[in-house]
Amino acid sequence: MTDRDAVLAANHAFYRAIESLDEAAMAACWSRSISDTCIHPGWPILRGWADVLASWRAIFDGTTYMRFVVSDPVVDVLGDVAQVTCLENLYAIGQSGTAHAQVAATNVYVRVEGGWRMRLHHGSPVHHAVSEDPPAGEAS
Amino acid sequence: MTDRDAVLAANHAFYRAIESLDEAAMAACWSRSISDTCIHPGWPILRGWADVLASWRAIFDGTTYMRFVVSDPVVDVLGDVAQVTCLENLYAIGQSGTAHAQVAATNVYVRVEGGWRMRLHHGSPVHHAVSEDPPAGEAS
Repeated sequence: MTDRDAVLAANHAFYRAIESLDEAAMAACWSRSISDTCIHPGWPILRGWADVLASWRAIFDGTTYMRFVVSDPVVDVLGDVAQVTCLENLYAIGQSGTAHAQVAATNVYVRVEGGWRMRLHHGSPVHHAVSEDPPAGEAS
Repeated sequence: MTDRDAVLAANHAFYRAIESLDEAAMAACWSRSISDTCIHPGWPILRGWADVLASWRAIFDGTTYMRFVVSDPVVDVLGDVAQVTCLENLYAIGQSGTAHAQVAATNVYVRVEGGWRMRLHHGSPVHHAVSEDPPAGEAS
C-alpha cells in the first residue's frame, strides 16, 4: 500500500468514525496527544486530546444520524506528515433538526507504527454564494 | 533562531503581507507550487498557486484597509513541515463596508532553503454563540 492509499484509508476511517457516533472509533483515529487540534465549523480552536474528545462527545450526544459523502480529496505527504483537503457533503439529524451542509476540511495525519493518526481536523462551512463564483485561474 | 521562532516569523510575515494588500509581498510567503492550498472563510477549496494568487488579488482589489491582531498562536514542527493554529482578530474596510471578525486559522509551512514557506492557509469564522460555551475539558 502506498503512503497515499494509507492516508486515504485513515481519512475514510475518520468519516466512518463520525458516522458511527462512537467515541472509541473516533479515539482510534487520533494521535491522542496534547498536540491534537480540532476546529469544528464555527467553533473556536480546541487543543489537546481531552478537549477534542469532549467536543466529539457533545456532537455525538446531540446527533441521531450523520452521513458524509467525501468528495475531491487531495493528499500531500511530506515525510511523516500527511495533509488531506476534501469537501464533506454532510447530512445530519439531531436535536436541532435536519442539516444538509457542505464543509471544506483540512485533515493532518502523522505517521505512527502501523498507520497514520489524525493530529488536526479543521472544517469550515462553504457558503454557496461564493462557491458558485470562485476566482478564475488554473485548477490543479 | 529556533525552528519555532522562524515559523512564527513566517506567520507574522504572512499577516503583514495581507495587511499590505500587496501581491508581491503575499507571493513571497508561499511555496508557489501546485500543492498550495487556500480555504478563505466561507470559500471552497482553492488549489494550486495560480488559483490561490487570484483569490488574494480579488481580496486586495476589494479592500482598502485591513489589520490583524493574531492571538493564541501554537506552533507544531515535525520534520520539514510546520503547522500554526491561531486566532485572527480582523478589522477590514472594503467595498462591502466595515468588517470586524474573529477567524480560526490553520497555516501549514514547509521548510525551504533560507526559511519557511506557506503551503496551506485555512480560515473559518468563529461564531460567538458557540465560542462562549466551548465543551468542558483540559486546555493544553
